[in-house]
Amino acid sequence: MNFNDYIRNIPDFPKEGILFKDITPLLKDKDAFHAVIDKMADKFKAKKIDYVVGIEARGFIVGTPIAYRLNRGFIPVRKPGKLPYDKISASYDLEYGSSELEIHSDAINKGDKILLVDDLLATGGTTKASIDLIEKLGGDIVGIVFLLELLDLEGREHLKGYDVYSILKH
Amino acid sequence: MNFNDYIRNIPDFPKEGILFKDITPLLKDKDAFHAVIDKMADKFKAKKIDYVVGIEARGFIVGTPIAYRLNRGFIPVRKPGKLPYDKISASYDLEYGSSELEIHSDAINKGDKILLVDDLLATGGTTKASIDLIEKLGGDIVGIVFLLELLDLEGREHLKGYDVYSILKH
Repeated sequence: MNFNDYIRNIPDFPKEGILFKDITPLLKDKDAFHAVIDKMADKFKAKKIDYVVGIEARGFIVGTPIAYRLNRGFIPVRKPGKLPYDKISASYDLEYGSSELEIHSDAINKGDKILLVDDLLATGGTTKASIDLIEKLGGDIVGIVFLLELLDLEGREHLKGYDVYSILKH
Repeated sequence: MNFNDYIRNIPDFPKEGILFKDITPLLKDKDAFHAVIDKMADKFKAKKIDYVVGIEARGFIVGTPIAYRLNRGFIPVRKPGKLPYDKISASYDLEYGSSELEIHSDAINKGDKILLVDDLLATGGTTKASIDLIEKLGGDIVGIVFLLELLDLEGREHLKGYDVYSILKH
């Protein structure tokens, strides 16, 4: 199965000059969806993992079935104001300005083994912020897995020293 | 297993007077997470289902592993401006004003059998908007499943005629 057949290119979204990679056709096809989750999960199944962490919102879409597949718990990294309990935050740069991500303070204990999941590796900003959150709480990141990596944006440069795996490279 | 042991009550979130039901302890416990997904999915496994539809964002957290478990495709209902392709929208009331949800126009074909999933049935506003989107595209809703139902808010009153199932009733 070629997963690229299920990625739709949308020109000029969310703004002019951006070629957006739409993963919804892949999610909709039961065989492609199941196979891509298995491939993302099984890459790390030989490692000791305590929890899968997924980044809001599309990281939830791939992260929770990976947690289910690996029979591990799921921990969400969320946008500001969404998590109700004690939390910490980390900021990341946008084209203009910056934004933040948050995680519950009690989500991770020192030494917990974490698999970090998102759909897309672009510039790596949200991934790096999520790494900061996990490591501030003492978590040990044993792997980072993406459905799709945009090579031109060189996000991987910000993730040196981590075991990074992406299913598709565009 | 009593899933209620994994629901954390947070007073005054997101604002004073609201008792927020935090599902993150349940998601984090691998056995509770796995068991609740199986229970939500297996309630409908005897029915013919083509696609699972989940509502952004916490509906993604429970919806995608249910789709994985049932071996069906997943279709997201998203907040405004997130979906990149041709789409339709439906509005729902907030305490002050209103907001919208969107779905891709080609996500569902006439007669497709849909299982609609979200984490929480509160007033039923976002559920009703999602039903409107699915039915505008000709989808046939064979079931609606929630992790948690807040009985006092009587959201179920807006869902008459549908096969509605919730794991926990608070």
